[in-house]
Parts: sequence; structure tokens; C-alpha cells
Amino acid sequence: MSSVDKQLEDLKAEIEDELPPGISVSDVKYEGPELVVYTRDPKEFASNGDLIRKLASKLRKRITVRPDPDVLMDVTAAREKIREVIPEDAGVTDLDFHVDTGEVVIEAEKPGMVIGRHGSTLREITKAIGWTPEVVRTPPIESSTVSNVRNFLKQEREERRDILERVGRQIHREEMADEQWVRITTLGCCREVGRASFILSTAETRVLIDCGDKPGAEGEVPYLQVPEAAPLNSIDAVVLTHAHLDHSALIPLLFKYGYDGPIYCTEPTRDLMGLLTLDYLDVAAKEGRTPPYESEMVREAIKHTVPLEYGDVTDIAPDVKLTFHNAGHILGSAVSHFHIGDGLYNVAFSGDIHYEDTRLFNGAVNDFPRVETLVLESTYGGRNDYQTDQEDSERNLLDIISDTHEKGGKVVIPAFAVGRSQEIMLVLEEAMRSGKIPRMPVHLDGMIWEATAIHTTYPEYLRDNLRDRIFHEDENPFLAEEFNHIDAGEDERQEVTDGEPAIILSTSGMVTGGPIMSWLRHLGPDPDSTLVFVGYQAQGTLGRRIQNGWDEIPMNDRGNGRGGRGNTLSLKMDVETVDGFSGHADRQGLENFVKTMNPRPEKVLCVHGDERSVQDLSSALYHDYNMRTFAPKNLETFRFK
Amino acid sequence: MSSVDKQLEDLKAEIEDELPPGISVSDVKYEGPELVVYTRDPKEFASNGDLIRKLASKLRKRITVRPDPDVLMDVTAAREKIREVIPEDAGVTDLDFHVDTGEVVIEAEKPGMVIGRHGSTLREITKAIGWTPEVVRTPPIESSTVSNVRNFLKQEREERRDILERVGRQIHREEMADEQWVRITTLGCCREVGRASFILSTAETRVLIDCGDKPGAEGEVPYLQVPEAAPLNSIDAVVLTHAHLDHSALIPLLFKYGYDGPIYCTEPTRDLMGLLTLDYLDVAAKEGRTPPYESEMVREAIKHTVPLEYGDVTDIAPDVKLTFHNAGHILGSAVSHFHIGDGLYNVAFSGDIHYEDTRLFNGAVNDFPRVETLVLESTYGGRNDYQTDQEDSERNLLDIISDTHEKGGKVVIPAFAVGRSQEIMLVLEEAMRSGKIPRMPVHLDGMIWEATAIHTTYPEYLRDNLRDRIFHEDENPFLAEEFNHIDAGEDERQEVTDGEPAIILSTSGMVTGGPIMSWLRHLGPDPDSTLVFVGYQAQGTLGRRIQNGWDEIPMNDRGNGRGGRGNTLSLKMDVETVDGFSGHADRQGLENFVKTMNPRPEKVLCVHGDERSVQDLSSALYHDYNMRTFAPKNLETFRFK
Repeated sequence: MSSVDKQLEDLKAEIEDELPPGISVSDVKYEGPELVVYTRDPKEFASNGDLIRKLASKLRKRITVRPDPDVLMDVTAAREKIREVIPEDAGVTDLDFHVDTGEVVIEAEKPGMVIGRHGSTLREITKAIGWTPEVVRTPPIESSTVSNVRNFLKQEREERRDILERVGRQIHREEMADEQWVRITTLGCCREVGRASFILSTAETRVLIDCGDKPGAEGEVPYLQVPEAAPLNSIDAVVLTHAHLDHSALIPLLFKYGYDGPIYCTEPTRDLMGLLTLDYLDVAAKEGRTPPYESEMVREAIKHTVPLEYGDVTDIAPDVKLTFHNAGHILGSAVSHFHIGDGLYNVAFSGDIHYEDTRLFNGAVNDFPRVETLVLESTYGGRNDYQTDQEDSERNLLDIISDTHEKGGKVVIPAFAVGRSQEIMLVLEEAMRSGKIPRMPVHLDGMIWEATAIHTTYPEYLRDNLRDRIFHEDENPFLAEEFNHIDAGEDERQEVTDGEPAIILSTSGMVTGGPIMSWLRHLGPDPDSTLVFVGYQAQGTLGRRIQNGWDEIPMNDRGNGRGGRGNTLSLKMDVETVDGFSGHADRQGLENFVKTMNPRPEKVLCVHGDERSVQDLSSALYHDYNMRTFAPKNLETFRFK
Repeated sequence: MSSVDKQLEDLKAEIEDELPPGISVSDVKYEGPELVVYTRDPKEFASNGDLIRKLASKLRKRITVRPDPDVLMDVTAAREKIREVIPEDAGVTDLDFHVDTGEVVIEAEKPGMVIGRHGSTLREITKAIGWTPEVVRTPPIESSTVSNVRNFLKQEREERRDILERVGRQIHREEMADEQWVRITTLGCCREVGRASFILSTAETRVLIDCGDKPGAEGEVPYLQVPEAAPLNSIDAVVLTHAHLDHSALIPLLFKYGYDGPIYCTEPTRDLMGLLTLDYLDVAAKEGRTPPYESEMVREAIKHTVPLEYGDVTDIAPDVKLTFHNAGHILGSAVSHFHIGDGLYNVAFSGDIHYEDTRLFNGAVNDFPRVETLVLESTYGGRNDYQTDQEDSERNLLDIISDTHEKGGKVVIPAFAVGRSQEIMLVLEEAMRSGKIPRMPVHLDGMIWEATAIHTTYPEYLRDNLRDRIFHEDENPFLAEEFNHIDAGEDERQEVTDGEPAIILSTSGMVTGGPIMSWLRHLGPDPDSTLVFVGYQAQGTLGRRIQNGWDEIPMNDRGNGRGGRGNTLSLKMDVETVDGFSGHADRQGLENFVKTMNPRPEKVLCVHGDERSVQDLSSALYHDYNMRTFAPKNLETFRFK
């Protein structure tokens, strides 16, 4: 008998000891990090209020109870019962019964009402029908990404269960290593912004954290070919801090290279990764590059995702526990905390963070039970990388909009689909509602609308007060009538161009392609209109060149502003830059994150910044807070224990 | 056609272009780092004075010319011819003809006379018989190690040629990597003395440098199980800096784990490794430990050895050239210099070094064409690790010997078989010859005699003036009549004990077992005798305890002084310590090595020293010479390019 089987047998006996008479346990299995308890008495289980919670705390496991298939109530009857138990206001939009696992997925507009106080309604449901309910939110704005992902996972449910069972046995395997160490190897993202990729390794376990591309340098990918990452299929787990491509783009590639294990991330990160990596393939194809993998690999990645919520302490290996915390950067972004061994060591990877609250998100969490080493992003770590206060920035932006409106022109804002667009939307919605600027249409072009829909699907990941507003449909700012989804292509753009003053938010954020190129063609020659940059423009992008004063813009066939055959466009519109809307902490924010961090880490590795930024931040943290700091290079290994 | 075959075809054409008419090339092959040129006209080849040297310099390859088998002169006739050409004084002791390669191995007491000025006699031989001569020295003192190794290699000649051919093709393969980097990973020997083991890696190549054990901590072996070393059979080359067990003990283990490539080391290192690793297995067995490998693996290691001489610049991978330089530490010890890429980077591993000249060896070489990073031993790197001048130490030792002689006692010196014993022998021989101490027998017990025989086999590796003396048999100090090999066991020891004043040099050097235990039993109770420590006594050894004043010594059955069942011995003999005979540079020597190094390296990694020593040395070198210095931990990776 394998050690895992023995372990499960012991757990079954322990659970049976804990259960009141009359509640049976027919089987016990691991599925990913969860312990699944099968019973012939699901209703009795549900009746015993705190039973599951008590078991979980006693066994120190995440526990799911499932009915034995042969005690399941007939689906038609169950469907009726569920409708009876759940209040009408919950807005149930779909019920999906899975006979193989005894689960019923309830999609509802107001999941909270399906769950009930402390899960009371869910327990009611089980008591009534025996099935185990699982609740998901009906997106308030229809999202093809969310529905595609959900349908795909539904369709792959059986294979997924096999994967999870395999992963679960792997997580709970017997520890074999007789040595102890904790190391971090840098496969990218050092003294550069992009291709985030790290290996956290112990004698027992290897975890890959992020696997991104490098914007503006497509050939420079993480060093996956080094022995430290080989063979890829022996890596225990992949952790994705957030969905931006410089962290996620090459996650699907791992599956092409033979990885077959779990991807841990939040649910919104999973969906956004799907959206962004498919777009990444699309852009590569449009630019005539051979994409490094096929879309099939994106589906593999999604199939292997194990979604975690902020705060869930989760076993991901015999000697590693992972906990995600809000990072304040984009939807679902997570500071990833690793607890290694039994109190041996703790490492936190910041991923990308924003330390102050923004309109969209609460500020990054920097409070942990323990942490000895912090791997910290340093995008704005340079000694002069201070940003304008968002309040000032907002006033600045609104002034530009008012002025342009007065001239009868249009405001064009290139923006990243995920994060900055929604932040600006919130600024605009409030400004119009409170009369700070005139009401006018705000057109959303490119993936912005879809990304916004995903945001509204996961309000739990947004800032508290925003979440509360989204819960009340009539206050959901993203549903304001000014917002218009450009979904009819060039005709619609021409119509907007010919029409009244308006605001246009369009991708790509660095003017490297996408519909923004079309907006430049339409409105670039109009001296009454204004182009406003609200995000970082990387070296080598057209956005940066326009910022620097270029007004003759090569427009090639590929529409990516990189020159080549094609016409030249004379830019006559005003060009403005408003900083302060970054998704990244500025230098002050990074220092504050470290300064107020609890507990203060002993060591900090400064990564995800250009050479100057990581060096500046590393030496400042060393001098001001007396910690050991490092500015690693790619392909180095640091040992901590 | 493979890229190597194409390369060989091109080389053949190029050689044919260079050769005068009438000299044919029938085939061209790689054997290890050498290019072997087969010809039907070996005599004509040899007649053309500088031909081979010119070819080698033009092709930048090491070249060996071999006759086609079917043009070989009959062995009996060839034997006669050779005897005619070589002067009688050369003292030829064996001729060994290898029909498969057309080589004849000539063993002679005076190899120089077989070679002739600039190889003239060798060329004479080839001109006369067509065979390619190879010369080895007849050991002036019979050495079973040397003769075993030579016989074994003779017997395995065919398989060895296959290995070398495979290695040769591997070395000259086409470079595949499209990235460039240079890294060092520490698998041991950091903040500790022992288990030397490093990986030097580029995008193309991985080289393992040393693989030793840790004295006094048998379980602590190099971290070969980490991904950086996996799979072991994909490592390109192993380089052994010298034969001491803390550098060599686990080299044979590599073959058990699947390594099948070359071991680069000097010839004496190869032989000493054979001697010491077999003894290592022996000691393990005697102490009841399971040896990590069988003696068969020692033979595998020897079979895979590619011996290099000091100063030979040798391709060991498509992008790595290795050059050994005298390290002054023990026989055959080498500072290992790696030139990477085409001028990309240079790293020197000091191995263990002695910077000043000693009686046995010239001081370590620290002059290189280029070197950016130095990996430096730090055994005596601590701020107070200054040793007595050897001159003072010698006077001190001689005084102790004279005093003991006067009392009618005996002097017992525990000594390492390799290195320190021969140094002390030279001191004693000179002292007696010059009348500084009375003539008396010097008994050599344990492996000392055998190790001395190996030293006399390779006088080229000894200090210039010593080498010259060995070349003249009547001046060979190791043949002085005072030296007696204890080869009749306990009876002989009893006889010595009962006899006149004498000196005994015996292993083990740290009194952890071996015949020294017997000498303690015999002479420990004699208050007129003296025990003199001349080498480092590690923490936890009986030697260290006796130094610290222990005079009740547990003698267990295993005779390793570790306690257990057995009797206790009361030590009545005097105990003295004379430092200054170390094979390691002291703190001053290490600083001098770096200070006078040409060129001065940019970075120094301080290894092979306890925590305090590496930290002291690292910070001193940083402050005094303004270099970037590091005190790595085990399992870290540093990137240089």
C-alpha cells in the first residue's frame, strides 16, 4: 500500500471517530489540495451545523463532503427543491447537475443569497436534496471569457477530476528528502522588466512562480532550458501571481514542454490569463511571428488550474504551504506567501503590487504570520520614481477632458485592457455623476469591455466599497449608460469620429497595435482632439515616441506603428501625459510596503525593474532599514536555509 | 554527415594541403582533446622536423601522428631498432607494442634520454621503425600503484580508445546554444573544509570541478542530487584539481551514478587518486561503514582519465579550454584555468594551493593570460591564520629530534601519506647529510612509502632543484639509506620499538586510525619518546584531543581512537606541535597569491574554509584590493556573464 493510501485510510478512521453515530464515510480521497469525504448520509452531514468546519480544523485539511452517487435525489426533483429553498431575489440563472460527483453548480446573480449567512442556505440545500451545491456568479455584464472558461471546465470535468486526484496524491506524498534547504533561482525578471519566472526549491519540492514574456523583446523568454527547471514535468507546482503577460504569457508553453501539474492562481487570474494569452497568440500571428504554442495549450493550462482565494492556506507539496493575499495591482493579483517545512522558512513573492488603495482595489497586503525573505518588484524603485498623487492626476485628467470637450474635440486614451481601463472608467463615471465634467459617451474599444465584464464577475476581488456597489445592480458604476462597447468595427469608429465630443479608451496601452491605431488615423489629424497617456510607455514603443514629440507616424500594413511599407500620418492632435494611474507602487509605495511590513523580512531580493531601479531600491532598503538586500541577475541561485 | 565528421573531413583536407608531397593522410580522428592523424608514411612525417608542431599551431589542435597498421614494421625487428637508437644509459626497462594503434610504450629510467633534445630521439625512432613512441618513467622506487595503473590501462587500451573517441567527438561537437552565460554552482566546500565540488556551466557546457568527501563527517557529501547536476551523464567533463580525498573521494561514485565522460587531471593525480580512493574504501570497510561505491568504480574513473600536463591548453568542450598550472600543494595539484567562449570569460579555480616554494614544490602559479573570477581556497584565511616560517619550523623540529635522540627515545610523527611526509623526509635527509642531527633510521609506515614512490615517478612535478637531483640516482634524496619501509607489520614495529633512537613517520595524519595507533601503543608509554604533530588536526580527531592535553586514550578494537570497547592507554611520551609544514598557503600566502596575481581578478569567491576564515578573507580582499568578493553558501549559483 502506498504511503498516500495508508494516510487516507488513517484519515478515514479518524473522521469516523469524530462523526456522530448514523453518519457514514464511504470513501476518502484527495483532489488537489482538498480532502473529499464521500458519505451515504449527506443530509445528516449537512444537518450537523459545524461538522465540516470542525473536521477541517482538527485534520488541518480543506474538506469537501460529497454524497455517494447512489443516494442522490433525482435531478428533476432536486431542481425543484433548490428553486424552493433559494430566495427568488438570488437570480439563479443556471443549475448544472454532475451525477459523477453529486455536485450541483448554481449560477446566480447574487451568490451571497444562495450561500446564506455562514453557508446556512447551502446547508439547507444539501439537507433537502443530498447533492453538494457549488455557487458561481452570473456575470452582470456578459463575458464570453467567463462563459467559455466555465463551459470548458464543465466539459472537461472528468479529466479534471483525474488531474486533481493525481495532484492531490502528489501533494500528500511522503517526504523523501533527508536534507533541508530553501533556494530561489532566477529564470528571468532580474535587472529587467518582464519574463517573470522564479523557482523556489527545497530538497523535496520545486515550485515555479510565474512564466511571462518580455514586452518589446519577444525573443527574451524565461530560461526554462536550464537544469534547475529540468525536467519540467518534475516541477511540483506552478504559481501564477497575476494575469499580465509579463507574468503569464508562457504558462501554456509549460504544457507543450511536458509539464502536467497544477497551476495555482485566483479565479479571476485564471480567466484573465485565458483572455490575455489567447490575445497574445492572436497578436503574434498578426505580426507574422510564429507563436510559441497553440491555443490548445491555453486550454491545457486552464484545465490544470487550481483556483485559490485570498487567505486560503493551501498545501501544494509535502513541505510547502501557499497563501495568496491581495496585491492591489490588477484583478486577482496576489502576493504569494510560501510557508516551507514545519516552521523552517517563509518567503513572500510580491508579484506586482500597488501599496495604496486605488478606486479599484484595496492596497497590497503586507501582514503575514512570518516571512524571512521578500522577493519584491521594483518597477518604480529608482531614486526619482515618485508619482503624482492620484487625486492630482484625476483633476489633471478631468481638466484636459473639459478643455477638449469645450473645443468640441475628442479625448483618446490608450489603455491596457486589464486594470488601468477600469480605474479610468471609475474616475469618469464619478466625474460625470457629480458634474465635474459634462456627461458624454465613453467608448470602450479592444478588449476593455470584455476585461470589464470579468471584473464585474468577481466583485469580491475589488475594493470593499466598489464591491458593495456592484452587489446593487443600480449602483454598479460599470453599468453606467455613458459606457459604450465598440463592437461594430470601423463603421462605428467613423460614426464616433463624426459625432459629438466623447472619450475613447482603447487598447493597446503602449500604441503598439490594436484599435488605438485606427483611432490615431481617425482623430490624429484633428487639432481639437487630445491624446492622453495614462500608463507607462516602454522604450521602443510608438507610445513612447509620440510622448517624446514624434508627429510623423509611420502607419504600416500591420498597424503596429513599427514602420515598414505604408503611409505616414501627421499627428495634429494635442498630446498629454497624466501619470499617477499606475498599477504599480511608486518608489514611496515600495518603501512603505517594506517599512510597514509585518514582520519585517530579513532579506529582500529586488527584481522586476531595470538595472538602475533594482540597484537604487536595493541600496535604499539596505541603508534605511538595515536588511540584507540583493539585486540578483538572471540565472542565479540564492540559498536561505 | 554529422557536424563532427564534416569538421574532420575539412581538417583532413587542410592537413593534406600543408603536407609536402609524398606524405599521405589516410584518416583523421579525435581521441579526447587530441587530433590523431593516420598516415601511410610515418617515417617521412618524422623526417620533416617541425611538421607536427607547425600543423598543431596552424590548426590550433593537439596533434598525434600514427602509422596505418599495415605499414608497421615487424615487432621483433622494431624492438631491435629501438635498442639501437636509444642510448644504453636511458635504462629502458620495458617495450610494449600496440599493433592496433601503431604505438610503442617505452618505459625507461631516464625518459629524457629517450625523448632527446626537442624530441629528436623520438623522431629518430619513428624514422627507423614507423611506430609512434610514447615514453613513461620507470619508477626509481618500485610503486605498486603506478604499475597497477599502467597495467590496467594497458589491458583496457581498446575500450579506452572508444571512450576517448566518443569524448573527442563530444568536445568538438557543434555549439548548439544560442545564449551566452557563465555560472558557478556550489555543491559543497562553502563555509566548510571538505566535499569540494563545483559546477562551472555555460549555456552549452557543464563541467564538474572536484568531488570530495568531508573529513570527520562521512555523511556530508557533495549535493550531487540537485537539478543543476542532473542528469549526471549529461555533464561534459569532470576536472580534478588534486588527489586529496576532500577533492577526489567521490569521483568514482560519479560512475556509479551514470557519469561516463572524461576525468581531466594530471598523471600523478590519477595515480594518487587510485591509491587514496582504494584506501578510502578500505578504511570505510574497516570502520564498519558501507562504502558508497565498489573498487570497480575506481577502475572506471582511472579508465576515463585524460591526463594533462601543466601548461597544456586543452579543449574540453566546444566553448571551454582548460589549462592546469602548478598549485604547489601536493604532487600533481593544479590551479585550473578555464577559458570560456571566444574570449568571453575566464575563471580560475585555485584548488588547494601553497604560494611560497617548499622543499617539494615550486609555489603556486598565479600568472594567466586573462582571468576575471578566481575561486580561492581559504583554509587559513582567518585573520590570525599566520604560520611560522618553514625555516623556524624546521629548526624547531630538528631540536626536538636531537633532544629525543639524546634521551635515547624515538620521535613519532603522524603524517599524511601524500605531501607532508615527503616534505619532512626531505628535511630529515638534509639534516642528517649536513650533520644537523645525528644519522638514525627513519621508518616509514602506512602508505607513505608507496606515496613516496609515486613522487619519484613524476619528478617533473617537483621543485626544479629536487627534480634535478632525482634525475641523478645517486642524489635522489628519497633513496637515502636512512629511510626504511615498514613492510613486515607488528614484528618490525616491535623491533624498532626495542631498538636504537629512530624517527617514525606514520599514517594517519590526524591519528584517526592506521599504523599510528600501533606506534602509540608501542611508544606512548615511553617518557623518553616524543610525539610531534606537523599537520593540521581537525576538530573531533584523536590528534586534536592529544594536542589539547588528553593523556588517557581509549583504544578500541577498530583502532581508530574513537572510543568504544577496549583498553585505555596512558600517554607518557612528550607531545609537541610544530606548525609551518602545511601544504596550504597561510593567510599571508593567500593574500600574496591574490596581490601578485597577474592579471588581478575582478571577483573572488572564497571557499574551502570554515565560516570565519572565508568571511575574514573575503572582507580583507574586498577592503585591501577593492575586488568584489563573496563567501558563498553551498547550493548557490553565481552568474558572471
